[in-house]
Amino acid sequence: MRPAAARAGDARHGSIDAVLATRFAGTRKLRLDYELVGPADAPVVLVAGGISAHRHVAANALDARAGWAQGLLDAGRALDPARLRILAFDYVGADGSIDAPIDTADQADAVALLLEALGIDALAGYVGYSYGALVGLQLAVRHPQRLRHLIAVSGVHRPHPYAAAWRALQRRAVALGRLQCADEQGLSLARQFAMLSYRTPEEFAERFDALPQICNGQVRVAAEDYLDAAGAKFVARVSATAWLRLSESIDLHRVDPAQVGVPVSVIAVEGDRLVPMADAVALLEGLGGRGRLRVLRSSYGHDAFLKETDRIDALLASELFGPGKPIERSSPIQAATGVSA
Amino acid sequence: MRPAAARAGDARHGSIDAVLATRFAGTRKLRLDYELVGPADAPVVLVAGGISAHRHVAANALDARAGWAQGLLDAGRALDPARLRILAFDYVGADGSIDAPIDTADQADAVALLLEALGIDALAGYVGYSYGALVGLQLAVRHPQRLRHLIAVSGVHRPHPYAAAWRALQRRAVALGRLQCADEQGLSLARQFAMLSYRTPEEFAERFDALPQICNGQVRVAAEDYLDAAGAKFVARVSATAWLRLSESIDLHRVDPAQVGVPVSVIAVEGDRLVPMADAVALLEGLGGRGRLRVLRSSYGHDAFLKETDRIDALLASELFGPGKPIERSSPIQAATGVSA
Repeated sequence: MRPAAARAGDARHGSIDAVLATRFAGTRKLRLDYELVGPADAPVVLVAGGISAHRHVAANALDARAGWAQGLLDAGRALDPARLRILAFDYVGADGSIDAPIDTADQADAVALLLEALGIDALAGYVGYSYGALVGLQLAVRHPQRLRHLIAVSGVHRPHPYAAAWRALQRRAVALGRLQCADEQGLSLARQFAMLSYRTPEEFAERFDALPQICNGQVRVAAEDYLDAAGAKFVARVSATAWLRLSESIDLHRVDPAQVGVPVSVIAVEGDRLVPMADAVALLEGLGGRGRLRVLRSSYGHDAFLKETDRIDALLASELFGPGKPIERSSPIQAATGVSA
Repeated sequence: MRPAAARAGDARHGSIDAVLATRFAGTRKLRLDYELVGPADAPVVLVAGGISAHRHVAANALDARAGWAQGLLDAGRALDPARLRILAFDYVGADGSIDAPIDTADQADAVALLLEALGIDALAGYVGYSYGALVGLQLAVRHPQRLRHLIAVSGVHRPHPYAAAWRALQRRAVALGRLQCADEQGLSLARQFAMLSYRTPEEFAERFDALPQICNGQVRVAAEDYLDAAGAKFVARVSATAWLRLSESIDLHRVDPAQVGVPVSVIAVEGDRLVPMADAVALLEGLGGRGRLRVLRSSYGHDAFLKETDRIDALLASELFGPGKPIERSSPIQAATGVSA
């Protein structure tokens, strides 16, 4: 059974039913939810974000709400949905229905099933940010025939041990909340700790320089309002189980770069506290001739993809449409982005 | 009333009763516990550590247990208790008896009361690490006649906003634990998060490179055993209230470097995630001619003082006994450390 997709203009969302043999969670029947936006004959580019991202990357004719990478999918951008067909999906486990370890290999296999079901032989490009980059690397190892080019932003072949420890403690915050059926408080605290890993001291120094307050006999520092808001916004839309299992999934992730079967553009951010530059370089070395490294310096650290829209867009344009890149010069996108060989 | 001190050889510990007009906690009667180790006629150096440090800096004739800076107080070291008289005390609030904001100015005033009670006109030197450096800066502003030279290690005139946010979230972990009367679990988690701020990704990459395990259906990363042990060790000896109030105290801390009345050696660690080098430089600039900066690069980050014993010892020797430094060349220590003008 395949539920019918809804359509409006060039936008379509829907679900496919799939049976996935997972690495740690047995064989699961599940439904894969996707959005596909753009002309039917345009090259297909899959866009995948962090563990709390989803299929709604940007507003479209079917769903006018802003998406998680709203600024990057727009007229004139590299990811212009009038010129490319943009595919995105909800990660396996994102609905909280799997309370078992989920591997990035499972996500890659799910992408392959989704492409099969949608009749897409191969992606012209795969733009993966953070967890999406991890899944992209797995796709490039397990199903290299399904993508022509991978752009891996702020995500590499393995988690850094310090970042893994940081995430493990976030998971413990959720566990502590659960002891008293205060799932939301635990998840909120986990998110707040995560925010510190996504951003940088430079940004905090600029934004939160004010003196602390004493409220009800307790010290409250300048960043706490911001952190409260970040936690509250997060718990309103993410389930604790989904978040826990996808957080674990980052720490389970391991890919041998030598097994990656397609060209990869590695985009690394100097200042990213989760993915040190040394690990991006190690990935590049492992990729040999198939890799190329682009470096961005940003006070937004790991979140640069979401915040440095113009600079990320310029990098995506050159990696998708530059000489020898996956999308041909004859495509209409070329004129729009002004890239010449 | 002043409780009698206990003595053995050159070691003495005791308490003085004091009345302290605090900044936020009113006027308090409290007992200040100290240890004083070394010859009665030797120059007195106060050693003060992080918020969970205490008066027992190293084993001595009265108390054979290892102290919190055991390796730095030893024969042949700069801080040789056979040649200097080493004073240390328990911070105000360290016993958990004050459940109100505690300022570093309160600690400095307590030091002045302690010196008065012990008949010590002025410290030859004050070696402050982390919170101890903050208290030392306050002492140098409020009671400059009480010390001839301050060595401030890994602590400056103000908290960094990012570090303050990190501590605020640790305090929230304690609050989350308290909701369910699980103070120890909250405090343990807070300590584990603190460990990430004290150490560095470089150290974690070397020590915790192993693959994650799956235990009882959950992912467990390589650093978790270490973090568990760090949390358990901490909750066994620190009360949640004491820790919360001293953690807050770091975030309340503000000193105008221009008001510092004594020479200061600023020792900063490149790689310290709590005290960025830029803040040590800002302190130095504010100190004008009274400051001097020494920089150490260490993969132990903020904890370098506790881990890089030989290198810290060498810096302390040159800052305490070098040319123009607070302890005279004619002191017997000079021959022992081999420092010449």
